[in-house]
Amino acid sequence: MKRLFALCFALLLSTAAHARGYAIQHLEPGNWWVGMRHDRVELLVHGPGIAALAPRVAWDGVTVADVARVENPNYLFVTLAIAPTAKPGRLHIDFMDGERIAVRHPWRLDTREAGSAQRRGFDARDAIYLVTPDRFANADTGNDSAAGMFEHADRADPNGRHGGDIAGMRRHLDYIAGLGFTQLWPMPLLENNQPAYSYHGYAITDLYRTDPRLGSNEDVRALSREARRRGIGLVMDVVLNHIGSQHWWLRDPPTRDWINRADAFVETNHRRTTVQDPHAAPADRALFTDGWFVRSMPDLNQRNPHLARYLIQNTLWWIEYAGLSGIREDTFGYADADFLSAWAQAVLEEYPDFAMVGEEWSANPAIVAHWQHGKANPDGHVPHMPGMLDFPLQIALRSALVQPEGWDSGFIGLYETLANDFVYPDPGRLVVFAENHDSSRVLAQLDGDLALWKLAIAYIATTRGTPQFYYGSEVLLRGPKERNDGLLRADMPGGWRGDAADAFSGRGLTPQQRNAQAFVRALFNWRKRTPVLHDGALQHYAPVDGVYVYFRYDATAGKRGKTVMIALNKNAQPTALALGRFGDFIGTDSRARDALDGQPVVLGTSLLLPAKSATLLEIAPADGAQGE
Amino acid sequence: MKRLFALCFALLLSTAAHARGYAIQHLEPGNWWVGMRHDRVELLVHGPGIAALAPRVAWDGVTVADVARVENPNYLFVTLAIAPTAKPGRLHIDFMDGERIAVRHPWRLDTREAGSAQRRGFDARDAIYLVTPDRFANADTGNDSAAGMFEHADRADPNGRHGGDIAGMRRHLDYIAGLGFTQLWPMPLLENNQPAYSYHGYAITDLYRTDPRLGSNEDVRALSREARRRGIGLVMDVVLNHIGSQHWWLRDPPTRDWINRADAFVETNHRRTTVQDPHAAPADRALFTDGWFVRSMPDLNQRNPHLARYLIQNTLWWIEYAGLSGIREDTFGYADADFLSAWAQAVLEEYPDFAMVGEEWSANPAIVAHWQHGKANPDGHVPHMPGMLDFPLQIALRSALVQPEGWDSGFIGLYETLANDFVYPDPGRLVVFAENHDSSRVLAQLDGDLALWKLAIAYIATTRGTPQFYYGSEVLLRGPKERNDGLLRADMPGGWRGDAADAFSGRGLTPQQRNAQAFVRALFNWRKRTPVLHDGALQHYAPVDGVYVYFRYDATAGKRGKTVMIALNKNAQPTALALGRFGDFIGTDSRARDALDGQPVVLGTSLLLPAKSATLLEIAPADGAQGE
Repeated sequence: MKRLFALCFALLLSTAAHARGYAIQHLEPGNWWVGMRHDRVELLVHGPGIAALAPRVAWDGVTVADVARVENPNYLFVTLAIAPTAKPGRLHIDFMDGERIAVRHPWRLDTREAGSAQRRGFDARDAIYLVTPDRFANADTGNDSAAGMFEHADRADPNGRHGGDIAGMRRHLDYIAGLGFTQLWPMPLLENNQPAYSYHGYAITDLYRTDPRLGSNEDVRALSREARRRGIGLVMDVVLNHIGSQHWWLRDPPTRDWINRADAFVETNHRRTTVQDPHAAPADRALFTDGWFVRSMPDLNQRNPHLARYLIQNTLWWIEYAGLSGIREDTFGYADADFLSAWAQAVLEEYPDFAMVGEEWSANPAIVAHWQHGKANPDGHVPHMPGMLDFPLQIALRSALVQPEGWDSGFIGLYETLANDFVYPDPGRLVVFAENHDSSRVLAQLDGDLALWKLAIAYIATTRGTPQFYYGSEVLLRGPKERNDGLLRADMPGGWRGDAADAFSGRGLTPQQRNAQAFVRALFNWRKRTPVLHDGALQHYAPVDGVYVYFRYDATAGKRGKTVMIALNKNAQPTALALGRFGDFIGTDSRARDALDGQPVVLGTSLLLPAKSATLLEIAPADGAQGE
Repeated sequence: MKRLFALCFALLLSTAAHARGYAIQHLEPGNWWVGMRHDRVELLVHGPGIAALAPRVAWDGVTVADVARVENPNYLFVTLAIAPTAKPGRLHIDFMDGERIAVRHPWRLDTREAGSAQRRGFDARDAIYLVTPDRFANADTGNDSAAGMFEHADRADPNGRHGGDIAGMRRHLDYIAGLGFTQLWPMPLLENNQPAYSYHGYAITDLYRTDPRLGSNEDVRALSREARRRGIGLVMDVVLNHIGSQHWWLRDPPTRDWINRADAFVETNHRRTTVQDPHAAPADRALFTDGWFVRSMPDLNQRNPHLARYLIQNTLWWIEYAGLSGIREDTFGYADADFLSAWAQAVLEEYPDFAMVGEEWSANPAIVAHWQHGKANPDGHVPHMPGMLDFPLQIALRSALVQPEGWDSGFIGLYETLANDFVYPDPGRLVVFAENHDSSRVLAQLDGDLALWKLAIAYIATTRGTPQFYYGSEVLLRGPKERNDGLLRADMPGGWRGDAADAFSGRGLTPQQRNAQAFVRALFNWRKRTPVLHDGALQHYAPVDGVYVYFRYDATAGKRGKTVMIALNKNAQPTALALGRFGDFIGTDSRARDALDGQPVVLGTSLLLPAKSATLLEIAPADGAQGE
């Protein structure tokens, strides 16, 4: 019966199709690589009445393994099986109307880069520089507007596009490397052809196309290649939860269930606890994952197996194509949990040492930990994410800086949040940050208090995990105190011709800006050459009287090996820190030097900490080698 | 060599001892029961030079299985093995000096009460009434002072003893039962012979003796017996972490390590996260568990095996002696973690269905969950506590009541805290409360807002777990807003002859007090007869606009069985609640009635919730039986 129905359906389509010519509007992905573990590629083929046709491939080692049709006759899902022996090259796929070739479409099999599968993703040895590409540097004014794109650059509009581009990032890779960063995470680079408010990149309208106002796919690849030469990996900002409302899927959805709540817009409730909460109302849980993030971002239903495969392949494609070193996944948890697990697992099957972190914006470590590989979850969810963004620590750090010190406030909150590391299978793989593109900048939150700002940056550079820094803070971009994305993501001075000041060359910067930039440069370059800050153990002491002290040390060498001491003083006065408490690390014979300026520091019975400061010391026993 | 040393030591002692007479000052426990699983009882024997003697018992089925000596010659640890066939009765233990009986001490073997091992501890079917015995009722003025006790009753001193006693609780058991409570938890009843501030009971100076100003051991047993006749179980407040500074151990400690940090007083740092924190400085961790709670409460070292056995036996003794139905363990986590596990395990081996909850005063469910039986802890700690006091929920409830409602504040905090139930192996075994003897009273915190106070009490009576209520709040004892223990633990009106008002009879209460008392009585009696509130599942809906709705239902019967709906309205205005969202539980044919007054309630498309109120509805489908 089912078979009969399918037959009739095909016949009807075929009849209708004969009346007009066939054309393929989309066939994705347009290429694949020989030798991938993922060697069965499901192509999404889109064109009027295309479901009436049957695909055929004539290429050694490539076979049509499966063809699936859905309720929309304009789609075909064609699975190609690619043998490891297949020869790379340009082939074509014929779409047959009976024995007639109705459409012929080019396709390509590529050679993988050497060592592609073994690539190492970022880890705690790295430090990430996060950039809003539209706001970083405009090196190609020729793409400020682009054919077919709704929105053009308008620097006067804080919520408009400003013209920053991939060329801008390529131009300033030396600057980024010089600051000591080893990973570049640009906000999404894919096409966002939305009528307005498109600069941020999270409303993707084509998952295989770089936004032409930023550059081309080839530019992304060049960015990655040039970055790698400078010791910088490229991290892609991936969005699995939603697309932009102008994505072509919206005009002709493959299936009725492709988009969640497509009939009547309903916003997600953002109640992320519903995912783990054993008491959550099922309707609340469904609304969290299936409601739309905002009206301009339709919610994808990753429970649809074709969509799930599409998204997984899209990720693999970009890793392979652009030589990525990591992924930051947006709005984690808003997507389907089973899919998220399958997606991460598929990526790691292909690239076992790859890095991925998800954005679970919660202050609660138990909520974030739910998603990390190795977590035994009572709800049975088996996660595969190697890491997550450490929002609990970010929130605690910022509270610590603004709260007065007290028995249960200030640094204690930060200390007690880090204490929750026991809930994570691997806290060392979290990404730590003080601010990002969705928060206010720390400097604004601190009303411009540069000393406390340095303390915050020193913290993220020296605690466990991989630090992430937001572009421009090194030259004191500040933005408003309350969240305002357009103003927060301000233009980097010097990124535009004619800018009065230039962060990249240093021209026109104020003494304060130079001071901050020099601090960031010294801090992250020191971090880069100091292995104990990467994989050393961390031991911290309960904060007392506004001072928080911790050590990074080589646990394999014992506590008297080379050690870094971090003493954060939040007091507005210089504070004498008695050293007797730190006997695990400081002996009478210990020698120390300031980590940033290299000057020797005398460790007596107490150490005078400057007001509002991070004291960073390299400590070695008297007979030990120190930093040579 | 070791053996030779021990011999010489014994010889020396023996020589010294001959010079004077022997006397036993303490021998604990003074009895045991036949048929306990714990059938090897280690007696702590204390008397000058007693270590020189050798114990001997002549009683069928009782043998001296082991004798241990420590560095203080005034102690002997004698292990008696008690066969299941031993005959109960009065025996004696002879302490031999060679073949001479130097001291003869009486001892007793008792018969267990029938079903003792199978006793059921409290669970979610119960509701607990917490009492500060010194402040509840003074039914025996004859014990307001007692021979040998430093402190006498002085009602004028908020931090002094007021004369309340066990007789007072016995007199008012009908009152407590009438309110709907089924468990009585008095703060510790054991001797606290401290020079001052002794009324609270947590500075115990004799672990086998009831404070004579409260009554006798036999009075405790009578209280338990009389309570049980009224359907009330007795919960003992056990303190394992510390003793009072006037405990006789301090004058002659059994070993140098019996008391932690005995040489120089040092207070605990109260940094409880150090127990689980993988980064905690070992010195901070040690200070947390080994520092003293306060100067008047020396910290016990439960790592000493004799002390550990003493404490475990002491607990078993009180359960068996007084017929307890549960234990609340004080300052949990401040004691040694391995010991806590062994202690709880020993109790449950003896009484498999017993109830115990620990006091881990943390807002963080991950910290509290660490101690519950079944939790797989990354640090390897294997906990055995069936339950814990739910401090995170208490803290969240109180914040919810005072914070304005907002996107992330007010009820949302309470909702998201309950969402953390996934971290507990068994959240249904937590004890929930809005206030206790260490907090301010909710009414004070709410500046006397009786409506919100009722909402808080309704919450603890209807959420999952066993509710605990603090005496006197039913007649609006209020105390100060900031914590002040002496004033918080105010005298119950009517507990003292001549009191102007009497909570027990109702005489002289204000209309507000009568109203509150009637509310508590109706609420907890309804809870008592409503099984779905005991073991029903809970489903809650993300709070919206100051209204928080949840349901208790029989998961085995599906969501359309008998159900209780709780709608908490924090708004100062009556609020219309649209019911469409609750289709899981409310159908067009559902009938409802008010849980407290029994009046029918019409469920249309919306329900009008009174300002600041808890609406409690019993719901049944139209064709279902309702509450018959």
